[in-house]
Amino acid sequence: MSVSHDDLANAIRALTMDAVEAANSGHPGMPMGMADAATVLFQKHLKFDAADPHWYDRDRFVLSAGHGSMLIYSLLYLTGYERPTIGDIRNFRQLDGPCAGHPENFLLDGVEATTGPLGQGLAMSVGMAMAERHLNAVYGDALVDHRTWVIAGDGCLMEGVNHEAVGLAGHLKLGRLNVIWDDNRITIDGPTDLSTSEDIQARYAAAGWHVVECNGHDPAALDAAMKAAKADPRPSLIAARTVIGYGAPNKQGTSATHGAPLGGDEIEAARETLGWTAPPFEIPDAILSAWREIGCGCADRRASWLDKAKKQPQWDEFAQRMDGGLPDGFETAIEQHIDSLIAEPVKEATRKSSENVLKVLNGAVPSTMGGSADLTGSNNTRAGDIGVFSAEDYSGRYVFYGIREFGMAAAMNGMALHGGVIPYGGTFLIFSDYSRPAIRLGALQQVRAVHVLTHDSIGLGEDGPTHQPIEQVMSLRAIPNLRVFRPADAVETAECWALALKDKETPAALALTRQGLPQVRLEGRVGNLSAKGAYRLKAADAARKVIFIATGSEVHLALEAADRLEKDGVGCDVVSMPCWELFAEQPDSYKEELLPNVQPGEILRVSIEAGTTQGWAEHVMLNGLSIGIDRFGASAPAPALFEKFGFTPDQVVARVKAKLES
Amino acid sequence: MSVSHDDLANAIRALTMDAVEAANSGHPGMPMGMADAATVLFQKHLKFDAADPHWYDRDRFVLSAGHGSMLIYSLLYLTGYERPTIGDIRNFRQLDGPCAGHPENFLLDGVEATTGPLGQGLAMSVGMAMAERHLNAVYGDALVDHRTWVIAGDGCLMEGVNHEAVGLAGHLKLGRLNVIWDDNRITIDGPTDLSTSEDIQARYAAAGWHVVECNGHDPAALDAAMKAAKADPRPSLIAARTVIGYGAPNKQGTSATHGAPLGGDEIEAARETLGWTAPPFEIPDAILSAWREIGCGCADRRASWLDKAKKQPQWDEFAQRMDGGLPDGFETAIEQHIDSLIAEPVKEATRKSSENVLKVLNGAVPSTMGGSADLTGSNNTRAGDIGVFSAEDYSGRYVFYGIREFGMAAAMNGMALHGGVIPYGGTFLIFSDYSRPAIRLGALQQVRAVHVLTHDSIGLGEDGPTHQPIEQVMSLRAIPNLRVFRPADAVETAECWALALKDKETPAALALTRQGLPQVRLEGRVGNLSAKGAYRLKAADAARKVIFIATGSEVHLALEAADRLEKDGVGCDVVSMPCWELFAEQPDSYKEELLPNVQPGEILRVSIEAGTTQGWAEHVMLNGLSIGIDRFGASAPAPALFEKFGFTPDQVVARVKAKLES
Repeated sequence: MSVSHDDLANAIRALTMDAVEAANSGHPGMPMGMADAATVLFQKHLKFDAADPHWYDRDRFVLSAGHGSMLIYSLLYLTGYERPTIGDIRNFRQLDGPCAGHPENFLLDGVEATTGPLGQGLAMSVGMAMAERHLNAVYGDALVDHRTWVIAGDGCLMEGVNHEAVGLAGHLKLGRLNVIWDDNRITIDGPTDLSTSEDIQARYAAAGWHVVECNGHDPAALDAAMKAAKADPRPSLIAARTVIGYGAPNKQGTSATHGAPLGGDEIEAARETLGWTAPPFEIPDAILSAWREIGCGCADRRASWLDKAKKQPQWDEFAQRMDGGLPDGFETAIEQHIDSLIAEPVKEATRKSSENVLKVLNGAVPSTMGGSADLTGSNNTRAGDIGVFSAEDYSGRYVFYGIREFGMAAAMNGMALHGGVIPYGGTFLIFSDYSRPAIRLGALQQVRAVHVLTHDSIGLGEDGPTHQPIEQVMSLRAIPNLRVFRPADAVETAECWALALKDKETPAALALTRQGLPQVRLEGRVGNLSAKGAYRLKAADAARKVIFIATGSEVHLALEAADRLEKDGVGCDVVSMPCWELFAEQPDSYKEELLPNVQPGEILRVSIEAGTTQGWAEHVMLNGLSIGIDRFGASAPAPALFEKFGFTPDQVVARVKAKLES
Repeated sequence: MSVSHDDLANAIRALTMDAVEAANSGHPGMPMGMADAATVLFQKHLKFDAADPHWYDRDRFVLSAGHGSMLIYSLLYLTGYERPTIGDIRNFRQLDGPCAGHPENFLLDGVEATTGPLGQGLAMSVGMAMAERHLNAVYGDALVDHRTWVIAGDGCLMEGVNHEAVGLAGHLKLGRLNVIWDDNRITIDGPTDLSTSEDIQARYAAAGWHVVECNGHDPAALDAAMKAAKADPRPSLIAARTVIGYGAPNKQGTSATHGAPLGGDEIEAARETLGWTAPPFEIPDAILSAWREIGCGCADRRASWLDKAKKQPQWDEFAQRMDGGLPDGFETAIEQHIDSLIAEPVKEATRKSSENVLKVLNGAVPSTMGGSADLTGSNNTRAGDIGVFSAEDYSGRYVFYGIREFGMAAAMNGMALHGGVIPYGGTFLIFSDYSRPAIRLGALQQVRAVHVLTHDSIGLGEDGPTHQPIEQVMSLRAIPNLRVFRPADAVETAECWALALKDKETPAALALTRQGLPQVRLEGRVGNLSAKGAYRLKAADAARKVIFIATGSEVHLALEAADRLEKDGVGCDVVSMPCWELFAEQPDSYKEELLPNVQPGEILRVSIEAGTTQGWAEHVMLNGLSIGIDRFGASAPAPALFEKFGFTPDQVVARVKAKLES
């Protein structure tokens, strides 16, 4: 049997129909509509080797329309990745299987990114293409020379984040980025013209993209379009005109195929239409063999790449970077920096402290790539001699992301997923609300990306309530697998940065002040105290009646209040808690030592944080006192605001005394 | 003295320089650059009357680039609004003054929207223009016939949300919307070409907008451009080429003027350049008089509008709607609906219950305008015979927002700010992360908008962790002035909807299930129990040892667990807590009655909510038990997930018993 293009593509369609039917849930329309495009891409253009999913120089493929997950599961199975097996596909969307409803990068090799929240796959692919060009500029063609391919749907192309990503990619002339748009003119609610009249091709062209249109079911046309995309120096949009649910004779071209099983009758009709006679979940040998050949079509290319790559002088460094390692000098550089702070204490904003740490880190760790969403001078993110990453010079390590917080955070995820770079990016803490969906998706994907979030409380002053975070720190703490650091001074800022970089599988958010803070850590060579998430900064002199638990800019306030209370014979511990998540990971013995679980009334616990008190009950417990802000802020100079909202030693002392006497 | 255009515009520039200098913080560049455009707009085009800021048929003016707040404060003072006074302007950015760093709609009449978070002013203006066209279609030209004018900067035009808004406005052919783009080619980090190469005019044209370009410092050209904008049936972008900080001879055209005081020397030089000799904060009488005339230029027009309007048969209904009132039938309709549920209890998903309430509400309350971000059939938001709002028929009340969650939520804020409509819009709860910045800005602005957030836990099943909310409900609770409702059944859903609509100054988020739930409220005529935020659904039979506190889909689980425990002689209360915020507002006596503050160990409090446990310590207190999910979800059918994550009666009973015995 000679295997045709249609045979290959129909194998995807058949597996999709069968898996969605077996699961009794899922999205058949997109995989069936894009089976032709995906077949041409994998057969003729995508550089990959199913036997080595981690090949550093592979092309990256991102299924931005992640609901069409059966497309990628089919492709991975057919081309011979170790997983999914056909059993895994039979188990689509079932507990503990790798073929989840949406593709998860931590479940399957070959899934380069977790997708599903629309628009973000496309935006992450921009970060991948940025990382590729940067590493190419640093290490040359012999080590890095690949493309990023994306399949995106109408949903991806309506989301705001795609606009930000497209603008950034066009500006940076990321010619290695090729997006295939599944132009099927159907969304969940019905035809796209219910909600949009946009000329998408014109819009991409306006952003500096190359646009090529083709029939998405004609393999020759698809091949030509992909060739044209590769040949053009701009990022390319391939507008592939398709029919959703292609092959299902009664439902194709309608939203009925989008997100529900086709049903037994329609599957029968589709099999007839497509001429597919094999039983469910079975791929005829000849077709499977042809697919498996595609899966190892680049094996020789990979072998010769590896051969040549290993001979490059920079191979060891490159491989260490791609594997996420940090250079030897990293720890020493941080320690020396902290030593210098102990020797000469500083009073400064922690955003400034962060800049000073970054000068050290960017020197010691060549894989960092920084940036800001148009707040460079405010976020203090440009530090050290790292050059600017631009279309003219991809070797630079600082990105002017523009006013695109969400696009920036998504690109950072993509850079981290690509590997070889450690992205950090700045904006105001309040605008973490804009980038929050990407911060979450980074946490889910277990990537290392550092969000530098300055102006972290009413302490930013006059800009007022639209710019003053109240609930942001606590809301970020609620995201699983994210470490939220709120350092109290220059020393803690250095410790937190070190912790953020050391963990390869957890993103970090650093909440930093606009306003100056005194240095509270004055003792040398004590190790990284922030590593336990919380520690006793000051022990009670008089008999302990109070334990203050404070974070960031409120730690020095706690110290001042404690000093006054001690003068009145009230013994106070002060616990600095820069990272809730790390404290939660400590053994009970440590927690008990720091915050003894005594009867209420014996020791009063008092939290101080210039943000919502929601959540602090966990630490102050029954009858504790949470000093915070449970309303929107106001516009005024910072000292006036701290006075207004009760963040002065006088007011804290008064509240603690009132509570002790109640 | 005859007063020229330059005199008028320079008054804005002078006030801006003086106020920013006095505050020693603020943004002079934009007001100075846009003084000419604003002068032409207010003098020749904007329909307003400073003596009646609430004139229903006034044009709406939105300063989307809210950091340039001195522009609007100058305009309001100069045109003769009651506030700000010159004293208020001297007090720019100071505690308790109305001239906050960014303009706040709740501090000053004439500020139609709180702006500052970039892009959202523009997106809200789309909602205003939608409300205007809808009310025009319903009530006719005699009552409603105005425009929405926007000033937006490069920042607004880079944010993703502006792209969503622009796509929506173009599709809906909102010809009454005119956006003046402050095309100064400068952002905070420097020239715009650091981060963008987009052809903005082409991009707007691709979205179906009319685009006109002009010199932003030539009053005749500006006037002509505004005329052209008004004449075109499409929404218009006026690209006004300006110089940021116009008039400051050494700093204009650079980012140095964006966000910092000019300094005394530069102000001196600017005064010389502009020929402005009056002392700081003083406006020469002739110029002030000319401005005041502009401020009452439409007084006659307003009077004759009012005259005619009051004669319209629909005047009373229209005025009631514009003032935010609800029709008389509202309460009765809800009560009857609840009576019918008590008479015939249902087992259904609360998203379905919501649809059934909406059928009733949309009939009883003609001001509701619903919609969904392309999840109509999943959010169950299209209910009753409300027609579709489209460019062909603005009288419809259902909006297909497309895949634009953030744009939708921002438009909803704009509709609510406009008045006359009560917007509600649906998406999955997980995608409240996308719309979160607008949900927050609605809360800050004290608008009534209802966010219908379905698929509210792992109960959505197979779509997996990208789609399963974990931290979303709790994170929404952290936003000040937002009510988060998570109803347990059809009855609570009706109660929560009633509460959401009744409060004019607080937005609401409804978290609703995908999966079916048994009806737990079976007693008739008990009043709106959800109004207190929490209530005792079941009292202990045996001696009370346990109080379950549960929300939404976990309430019936708490009831089942309680029944089993009672059989073993463990008395259990079950408290349903559909709304934390309303419970927090109750008197201590009610809270104490419901959740007695006894010694730890006497009564065990157990919270059950299929989301993060963060925050629940507040209610379960010391030694309580919080049953929740503190990790990302997984892809599987819902029953398998509830089993995996511990949400079965067996597992709950086992955990409670273990805790009681510990």
